Amino acid sequence: MRSFEVRNRTSTEDIKALRMITAIKTPYLPDGRFDLMAYDALVNMQIESGADGVIVGGTTGEGQLMGWDEHIMLIGHTVNCFGGAIKVIGNTGSNSTREAIHATEQGFAVGMHAALHINPYYGKTSLEGLVSHFESVISMGPTIIYNVPSRTGQDIPPRVIYTLAQSANLAGVKECVGHERIDQYTKNGIAVWSGNDDQCHDSRWDHGATGVISVASNLVPGLMRELMFRGKNSSLNEKLMPLIDWLFHEPNPIGLNTALAQLGVVRAVFRLPYVPLPLAKRVEFVNIVKEIGRENFVGVRDVQVLEDDDFVLVGRY
Amino acid sequence: MRSFEVRNRTSTEDIKALRMITAIKTPYLPDGRFDLMAYDALVNMQIESGADGVIVGGTTGEGQLMGWDEHIMLIGHTVNCFGGAIKVIGNTGSNSTREAIHATEQGFAVGMHAALHINPYYGKTSLEGLVSHFESVISMGPTIIYNVPSRTGQDIPPRVIYTLAQSANLAGVKECVGHERIDQYTKNGIAVWSGNDDQCHDSRWDHGATGVISVASNLVPGLMRELMFRGKNSSLNEKLMPLIDWLFHEPNPIGLNTALAQLGVVRAVFRLPYVPLPLAKRVEFVNIVKEIGRENFVGVRDVQVLEDDDFVLVGRY
Amino acid sequence: MRSFEVRNRTSTEDIKALRMITAIKTPYLPDGRFDLMAYDALVNMQIESGADGVIVGGTTGEGQLMGWDEHIMLIGHTVNCFGGAIKVIGNTGSNSTREAIHATEQGFAVGMHAALHINPYYGKTSLEGLVSHFESVISMGPTIIYNVPSRTGQDIPPRVIYTLAQSANLAGVKECVGHERIDQYTKNGIAVWSGNDDQCHDSRWDHGATGVISVASNLVPGLMRELMFRGKNSSLNEKLMPLIDWLFHEPNPIGLNTALAQLGVVRAVFRLPYVPLPLAKRVEFVNIVKEIGRENFVGVRDVQVLEDDDFVLVGRY
Amino acid sequence: MRSFEVRNRTSTEDIKALRMITAIKTPYLPDGRFDLMAYDALVNMQIESGADGVIVGGTTGEGQLMGWDEHIMLIGHTVNCFGGAIKVIGNTGSNSTREAIHATEQGFAVGMHAALHINPYYGKTSLEGLVSHFESVISMGPTIIYNVPSRTGQDIPPRVIYTLAQSANLAGVKECVGHERIDQYTKNGIAVWSGNDDQCHDSRWDHGATGVISVASNLVPGLMRELMFRGKNSSLNEKLMPLIDWLFHEPNPIGLNTALAQLGVVRAVFRLPYVPLPLAKRVEFVNIVKEIGRENFVGVRDVQVLEDDDFVLVGRY
Repeated sequence: MRSFEVRNRTSTEDIKALRMITAIKTPYLPDGRFDLMAYDALVNMQIESGADGVIVGGTTGEGQLMGWDEHIMLIGHTVNCFGGAIKVIGNTGSNSTREAIHATEQGFAVGMHAALHINPYYGKTSLEGLVSHFESVISMGPTIIYNVPSRTGQDIPPRVIYTLAQSANLAGVKECVGHERIDQYTKNGIAVWSGNDDQCHDSRWDHGATGVISVASNLVPGLMRELMFRGKNSSLNEKLMPLIDWLFHEPNPIGLNTALAQLGVVRAVFRLPYVPLPLAKRVEFVNIVKEIGRENFVGVRDVQVLEDDDFVLVGRY
Repeated sequence: MRSFEVRNRTSTEDIKALRMITAIKTPYLPDGRFDLMAYDALVNMQIESGADGVIVGGTTGEGQLMGWDEHIMLIGHTVNCFGGAIKVIGNTGSNSTREAIHATEQGFAVGMHAALHINPYYGKTSLEGLVSHFESVISMGPTIIYNVPSRTGQDIPPRVIYTLAQSANLAGVKECVGHERIDQYTKNGIAVWSGNDDQCHDSRWDHGATGVISVASNLVPGLMRELMFRGKNSSLNEKLMPLIDWLFHEPNPIGLNTALAQLGVVRAVFRLPYVPLPLAKRVEFVNIVKEIGRENFVGVRDVQVLEDDDFVLVGRY
Repeated sequence: MRSFEVRNRTSTEDIKALRMITAIKTPYLPDGRFDLMAYDALVNMQIESGADGVIVGGTTGEGQLMGWDEHIMLIGHTVNCFGGAIKVIGNTGSNSTREAIHATEQGFAVGMHAALHINPYYGKTSLEGLVSHFESVISMGPTIIYNVPSRTGQDIPPRVIYTLAQSANLAGVKECVGHERIDQYTKNGIAVWSGNDDQCHDSRWDHGATGVISVASNLVPGLMRELMFRGKNSSLNEKLMPLIDWLFHEPNPIGLNTALAQLGVVRAVFRLPYVPLPLAKRVEFVNIVKEIGRENFVGVRDVQVLEDDDFVLVGRY
Repeated sequence: MRSFEVRNRTSTEDIKALRMITAIKTPYLPDGRFDLMAYDALVNMQIESGADGVIVGGTTGEGQLMGWDEHIMLIGHTVNCFGGAIKVIGNTGSNSTREAIHATEQGFAVGMHAALHINPYYGKTSLEGLVSHFESVISMGPTIIYNVPSRTGQDIPPRVIYTLAQSANLAGVKECVGHERIDQYTKNGIAVWSGNDDQCHDSRWDHGATGVISVASNLVPGLMRELMFRGKNSSLNEKLMPLIDWLFHEPNPIGLNTALAQLGVVRAVFRLPYVPLPLAKRVEFVNIVKEIGRENFVGVRDVQVLEDDDFVLVGRY
């Protein structure tokens, strides 16, 4: 189910050149459906601040809480509205090969520029199975492989990546395992994006990473762009650390969701199993914003401490 | 779940101005999935021949045989690849209000320019129910209502249309009931597209119809455009009648599917419950093509009579 | 995907012997989900009143407003709770052959005793297509074919039924076309259930019909059983006519839904596009109940006239 | 969406009493659909060998590779055919709270006796989120919580279990973390099933575990029953170790799938991302069978070494 219309083709080289990619937040209406107006605003903020690409429906965007129809729709929407201004990378990976095939076909059909693929988390498989899984989808278009053993319970070892590198569609790896692994890849000509905001500065400037696929850039896109584009800047990196530590105090995107709601750019609506950070942490965030400067964060409203009652948690949607 | 990005907005007036709209065929691969390369070629033929719009997943395009995820994907794909050159009208109607709401939201989110809405066929409802059904979706964007009692088992009476006309989103009606009804609407300022290829010439030139939503234009887009744009032309209209009679000998799109396969522009794959026309009818088509002139039909290959064995019928896909 | 466990096998002869089958209503919670407690009560009323079988998710049960997962779940639930006391016939028909295949496989897998199959409404097809459609599913188990041209827009002619009768799985036909057609079938040894409550008495006693697949029996199961089992009874038949006329004043199940809510056996919740009958009709129903006798109707509460505000209409669920 | 029909109610105490539960394998047809005849045979083998319960669609049964409609259908099928002879525990857990709610409602509606619930793997959440997730489903019926950090990337700490133990529906915990944790629970009156075949003997006899939720019992149900019911038996336990080590050489159910195919009780069909063990391992299995005794394994055919070409791997199904 391929299409070769020119609007449906992006070169792998274009993807390899992306330096700051934001794993964009998906905002919700009080009944749990997507809040597309808020989403459009978030994407526009990324474009204005110079992000090169967005991951749609990543773990940060809570792809794991979407039906595939919602997920593909969001990819198609993003391509239609913003595909000329920013690269759209759809997280069409799955622990089910069938679902990954289906979603990736559909994602490329609606125009996504590249696919992000995870190894089969939870169910897991053998190395041969890993290769078969990725080979089922890599022929469809530019592909970034995502390695995050703390979520998947299984490391993707370099030899799997080297096997996949035989395909011209391998754009590179989003790697969370650390600098040594990044070194190994970049020395072998494989593009790497750091998947850890706290390491991305060093990954970029000391270990050859192309850039970052970032959570923090949802909040401070301009500063993250500076970190990736304007040379080594340890003081900026250090300045951001308290924010990054705060963000990952609980599994992502709990911190991010709480932060964006307090910045007034999304409604305070959580799809379960995510729940907001507790009050003490919410107060902490306001102080962090003041420290770094409100003007560096997305949105224009005063940052505020939300009360427990301000949050809506939805289980059916 | 609205988006107000400029790429997601089309004016109802733009839709009202469309004169030749093709209810585009959906072609399949041998395993029953969409053949997007053939589809792209079909849409390009429409654009080159001057069609103003396409209906995606109409009854002609076999929306009733699609999953909603396939259907929305096809709308998104069409918008992404061709939305700048042709208007994309998604058939997001359903006999289930829930499904119509869900599909219409998603269709507009991926950028369709207008929605086509049928009344609840098979299940049917009261007039109050009809109005509630359409009012559940008309606020979402430009809307064409489709009336075809021979399929739905229930006529949409004019008073329902007049009620809906209070919404600025009502673009008009695809009407299959005949000239008297069309007169009634056009005299009241409601745009009408003929849903009957055999009547569309007279509807357009004698009864005030804006144009046609056509099946035949899949085959002879240039001639259908001529019929709709270049003034009264009874001889052309008569010349086309044998083709149109042939096309509707069995329920549409059986004839169309058979014809496009024999013209070599789509694979000879049918999703059940559709099956090809029998051999005698297939021979007849080749003669009709010769009569009207191969050059007036889509595609460049010689038209051929396919054998029974050339057809693939798929029930699981 | 067949199972031959003894709990999964019912003989076609068992199905042919069913005389009073109720097209059971599906009741809803205020958010539109199934109200299983009310449903269980309705089925128990049928069992207590001597119904032989239920159609699950028929047009009366609003199968057309269900997702297939809901529909199969409801079949499985009915089999599990009541399959020992009453025959469970799943309406696993569809205008999409793929969906009919999938649903019928699943329905038999969860233990339904027979399938009800409609011809492809709305999309329609040729006679060859009709046969291919039904042949895709009839091998899976006992099958009743449903002919209702006023809903489907297409009559199933006798020759299609005679072709299908070559399968030992054909249990018979639910026929709505009238007595002449019923005569034709019963003289040829094909079991028929009347699909019209107003004709079923005569169909049964004068035209050889096996029985009825009834809407009215949701309300007056005991009287309908009497009508089907205890010999010709024109006075009872006439006594029921005002109720039956009332029931079908608007497309079914609008009347039924309104009636059951006023009898206090289901919540006054409608899935759109169905809306309640207007007040005047609701008053009429109360009078009909008094005429026929409250004790002949399901439920024990006083019948009441509901106000407009008592009804909940749901579009998203 | 509750049902209180007697056939839909099982007491939590009944679930707590189950000692040998098999995480049953799901066998496939060559096109990837369920092979229900093989499945029925597998379940019958469990019943004959004295298993108390089955987990349907666990990680072993590849629930992660099923659509929810398939999954619920399989639960309903198992209840319908075998629910009188064996307890049916549906793995209706998910990392999406919405999906867990939906599946658990449907699973109990089709008659499952208990639900197995995992914490949100991959996406993960905070402890507060964990509790909210489980509280969204535990009210629906008897519930076993499943803790397997090596798959989920996140341990469920005891305080979460103690919070859930306030619900009368908590049947217990399937625990993979080890003996110390098991001790802690059993001393506090919480029922535990070992989720590790290699530890289950000691868990049962030395640490108070109720029993096991076993993979190996798919192969040697009689021996596993002996291990759980007939008192301490270190020699049997040791005899089984080579088999158990072999089974978990690659992520489960790769070994199990390979073994059952070689025993001739299921077709050699794998849904990707699972692929068979390599030839050397397949030879090893045949030797293990000989060592333990063919008569102790399910099936009656000679165990054989399958060739690479004997296996069918399916990605689309």
